[in-house]
Amino acid sequence: MKYKIIIAYDGTGYSGWQTQPNAITIQEKIEDALFQITQQKVRVIGSGRTDAGVHAEHQVAHFTLEKELATFAVKQALNGILPQDIRIFQVDLAPQEFHAQKSALRKTYHYFITLGDVCSPFFHRTSWQIRQKLHLQLMEQAAKYFVGEHDFSSFANEQFKGACGKNPVRNLYRLDICQWDFGIRLEFEGNGFLYKMVRNIVGALVAVGKGKMPPEEIPILLGKKDRTQAPLAAPAKGLFLKDVYYPQGNSSSKE
Amino acid sequence: MKYKIIIAYDGTGYSGWQTQPNAITIQEKIEDALFQITQQKVRVIGSGRTDAGVHAEHQVAHFTLEKELATFAVKQALNGILPQDIRIFQVDLAPQEFHAQKSALRKTYHYFITLGDVCSPFFHRTSWQIRQKLHLQLMEQAAKYFVGEHDFSSFANEQFKGACGKNPVRNLYRLDICQWDFGIRLEFEGNGFLYKMVRNIVGALVAVGKGKMPPEEIPILLGKKDRTQAPLAAPAKGLFLKDVYYPQGNSSSKE
Repeated sequence: MKYKIIIAYDGTGYSGWQTQPNAITIQEKIEDALFQITQQKVRVIGSGRTDAGVHAEHQVAHFTLEKELATFAVKQALNGILPQDIRIFQVDLAPQEFHAQKSALRKTYHYFITLGDVCSPFFHRTSWQIRQKLHLQLMEQAAKYFVGEHDFSSFANEQFKGACGKNPVRNLYRLDICQWDFGIRLEFEGNGFLYKMVRNIVGALVAVGKGKMPPEEIPILLGKKDRTQAPLAAPAKGLFLKDVYYPQGNSSSKE
Repeated sequence: MKYKIIIAYDGTGYSGWQTQPNAITIQEKIEDALFQITQQKVRVIGSGRTDAGVHAEHQVAHFTLEKELATFAVKQALNGILPQDIRIFQVDLAPQEFHAQKSALRKTYHYFITLGDVCSPFFHRTSWQIRQKLHLQLMEQAAKYFVGEHDFSSFANEQFKGACGKNPVRNLYRLDICQWDFGIRLEFEGNGFLYKMVRNIVGALVAVGKGKMPPEEIPILLGKKDRTQAPLAAPAKGLFLKDVYYPQGNSSSKE
């Protein structure tokens, strides 16, 4: 039976989603817990990797169990074994064709920035503190240039040259700059995101907000298709994978 | 010169506000930092103690420095020395008659409850998770009985008998049950709070919500003036000292 799970995690203490040698990752923690439950090696496939220190409110993953277990039992057992900073919010049976990564239609990410000289003790692990005053109107102008279908090579830590066949074109449906208690939250919604794309865009927007670069530089950078030309990435800790959407209203959102 | 400071802290790792032997407290951390800055023993007086594990968004304290230092320098130096989970949001010069505890007119506390079988990884240190369904209407009925001027002895872990001269009467101006993302937030506003009073009231309200006690039991318990008759206290980790108010708009709120 195929299972679809919705996971929230505080990424502070982990080397990201994806299993790798000599590092503790979210995927590995869940696979270890499933091994404890089933005594079998179960491969957990996420909607996408998140980097070390990145958080998730609604990451989605799927896995297949040889013997069928009730969804509530899987949820209870996983939450019983997993640490408090990884929680399974929902477990559903999924159709055989469901694939957490390949079936995903679109995703939302939120990036939290604390503005000012003091960062709340409740958000120092989950926001990027910027002491310098940011020019928000310039950032909003700059944000508009990212929305739409673009080749995002300049904002991706991946190589698209040569015969790897990967497509660097993504459609960013929405990039909103919202207020929250301690600063601003950048909301991204798109059909897909290249590696480090959100953090690289945040880094560029903050460079604009600090007056280091005019908003009109963004389309020029996009046109260059060269990561080395664009500003540095924003730190991982401000980034949240907020939601993953699937066909037929099969969203990751809690019902 | 007398200084008034506004402090936020994540109380998870501390044995409360008040300095005590063989324990790490918020007050001690700030006094140690002031010693590093001034090379003098400086006594820091808070608006009131908070227990081990209790948090504060706007705790207020005062202290006196022999040599005058600029407020921005005090703020910067304190935040430079203190750990990330204790932050100084504001430093002001205060009139000589100002006293963080005795001048306080009223205080607000918030208590966060996560409802349901899963607690968000971002709130397991700052909310009380209750799996059982709570009857919110009954809790609202019960809450009304607490509002107003009462002898709160049944909800205080203090002794008022004998000649200690302490007054167990407090005026609770407001007790609201609000919704938040993962459950309910109980908001308390009053002219003062006895030791563990908020947590004891929360414990009683949850007992009502679980159907263990009818709302009409609250006035009877208040009348008994006996702590041993009322339900157990709610855990510390859901409690936040939200604000302290002083005369002349001298609130703890950030401007």
